[in-house]
Amino acid sequence: MTDLAGPVAVIGTGLLGTSVALACRASGLDVLLDDLSAEHLRTATGLGAGRPLRAEDRPRLVVVATPPRHLGEAVAAALSDHPDAFVTDVGSVKAAPLRVVVDVDGVDRYVGSHPMAGSERSGPLAASAALFDGRPWAVTPHAAARPDAIEAITRLARVCGAVPVVLDPEDHDLAVARTSHLPHLAAVLVAGRLAGAPSAHLALSGQGVRDVTRVAASDPVMWQQILGANSAAVLGLLGEVQKDLARLIEAVAGGDDDALGDILARGNAGTAAIPGKHGGPSTPTASVFVSVPDHPGELARLFGDAGDIGVNIEDVHIDHDPGRPVGLTELVVEAARADHLLEALESRGWTTHR
Amino acid sequence: MTDLAGPVAVIGTGLLGTSVALACRASGLDVLLDDLSAEHLRTATGLGAGRPLRAEDRPRLVVVATPPRHLGEAVAAALSDHPDAFVTDVGSVKAAPLRVVVDVDGVDRYVGSHPMAGSERSGPLAASAALFDGRPWAVTPHAAARPDAIEAITRLARVCGAVPVVLDPEDHDLAVARTSHLPHLAAVLVAGRLAGAPSAHLALSGQGVRDVTRVAASDPVMWQQILGANSAAVLGLLGEVQKDLARLIEAVAGGDDDALGDILARGNAGTAAIPGKHGGPSTPTASVFVSVPDHPGELARLFGDAGDIGVNIEDVHIDHDPGRPVGLTELVVEAARADHLLEALESRGWTTHR
Repeated sequence: MTDLAGPVAVIGTGLLGTSVALACRASGLDVLLDDLSAEHLRTATGLGAGRPLRAEDRPRLVVVATPPRHLGEAVAAALSDHPDAFVTDVGSVKAAPLRVVVDVDGVDRYVGSHPMAGSERSGPLAASAALFDGRPWAVTPHAAARPDAIEAITRLARVCGAVPVVLDPEDHDLAVARTSHLPHLAAVLVAGRLAGAPSAHLALSGQGVRDVTRVAASDPVMWQQILGANSAAVLGLLGEVQKDLARLIEAVAGGDDDALGDILARGNAGTAAIPGKHGGPSTPTASVFVSVPDHPGELARLFGDAGDIGVNIEDVHIDHDPGRPVGLTELVVEAARADHLLEALESRGWTTHR
Repeated sequence: MTDLAGPVAVIGTGLLGTSVALACRASGLDVLLDDLSAEHLRTATGLGAGRPLRAEDRPRLVVVATPPRHLGEAVAAALSDHPDAFVTDVGSVKAAPLRVVVDVDGVDRYVGSHPMAGSERSGPLAASAALFDGRPWAVTPHAAARPDAIEAITRLARVCGAVPVVLDPEDHDLAVARTSHLPHLAAVLVAGRLAGAPSAHLALSGQGVRDVTRVAASDPVMWQQILGANSAAVLGLLGEVQKDLARLIEAVAGGDDDALGDILARGNAGTAAIPGKHGGPSTPTASVFVSVPDHPGELARLFGDAGDIGVNIEDVHIDHDPGRPVGLTELVVEAARADHLLEALESRGWTTHR
């Protein structure tokens, strides 16, 4: 099915590189692997991700998947080592590595990219051909990039099952600062205020605080590098949030309901701005809550019943229940179908509410 | 099963009041209802939540479930109208109403409380006897409260299916500032920075930003009242976060990896401090990701298979997929069971990864 021309060389066989390699292999492409770590390379080839890159190989596409630090240098080396190949990288920031390569010979063959996927695990053993399935994959051409290079990287994203989103490198870095780095840091600050709190306080934790802080559990070392490489965009947004926070404090301290209402309403508007499923506008959803006994098989029975009823579940949240072996499960469904689901579940003996 | 003595009077038949009334009725208690809104009262009695309160009634327990503003006055009126009754309220802040009633005759019969449950909907039609099922319910005795009053309110929480958590009113307000009001405001500030962002930026939104901002979709008017009533505790925490944010900005601007690492590690510690399911310490969990076609019945099939495999699902997240009719479903399971689940699902034809 692929019209991407191989062989594809993957430099760096960690989680992302090996996953790209496996996805390319699954599309029948010849894949060549390289890594400073002989052990990673052996593991990746053992997984069927490709064969070791040799000096005489002539890849048509090189994917640089080395750690964020020194990414630009690795891209420059790939452009010089493989003068016939298009080159991309899969790092999570894009302007910083471009600055390193912008004056390098052959930079017109380079187009950066960034798959919006990851895992709390790392290394080739955590890799999967399905890692990028349905995820956005930013493709970030610079001004001098060749159109056929852009086309090749866009095809790579599709071969990996991802959805290409084309935007320029600076724009990309602003976008991830807003949709990834800022939410991450806000979660870290809120979670930081939970550390050391009395256990009687923490006992009142509901689903809200769990959702807000979930991403703060990620690897600090990786985030040091990401934030370091995108510090300008992150600092711009943190400065805006600092002003918003000062206004919020002033509104709460002064009992200024109008100002507070404006801030809260802007939050409403922001949640509504996140694109809906399948990239379309958000369809209104509603939640149906169901009490589910906390042992294997009960969720299956619930989803089986929902399937029989014919209502599609858009999202699910299971409330961690601090005191009893019953989970409160929130089924998010199209708003127009919620009443039907609720009544049909009740008629099958489930305890529900909205 | 209840050893709570009725009749129970519920003042205010909105979502919370009517849900308390329905839960008490389900335990066989006599329930008396009152509301300034004749329509709400008619709806609640029509739902079987109880009968209208008459002047000659002698409730043993009065539950004040009126809006946050003027809650103290409503508690004082209940103490004076019903001189033989214990009185509680279900408001989301506790020190402010207590200040209004602390010098009122019979205040020793009053014990505040706060069920950690709600809904994006309001009014008696949204009510349910199951609303409090398994949720924490704060019981907040003041210094002069009678032990039998504390006991009665604790029993009310249990009758409603909730898990009583006893702490004093100031402590409660600090606890919810930390576990509810601060996370809410952080979500609002992050979401506020999404409002008006270019759609190409928002197209890169993943599950992280959705989780962090979800609660920011709530009703601004309700949150104005909650924040107004708990402004001291909220301002204390916002001040701390303001200092943390300044330190964060300094660390990012100065490229100070040690300082940034400390902040990120403190976030790790905070997420680990949230109590696990069933109030015990958090058990280590791991995620298994599965590609699931986005139509009715497929999730049922997945949960059916997981049930057959015998692995209990602790939590579920469905990634909203911007480009294709396949959902990426994250199954959170006990870490020791993850590999078994993954292999068993693969053997049944599911596309998985970790």
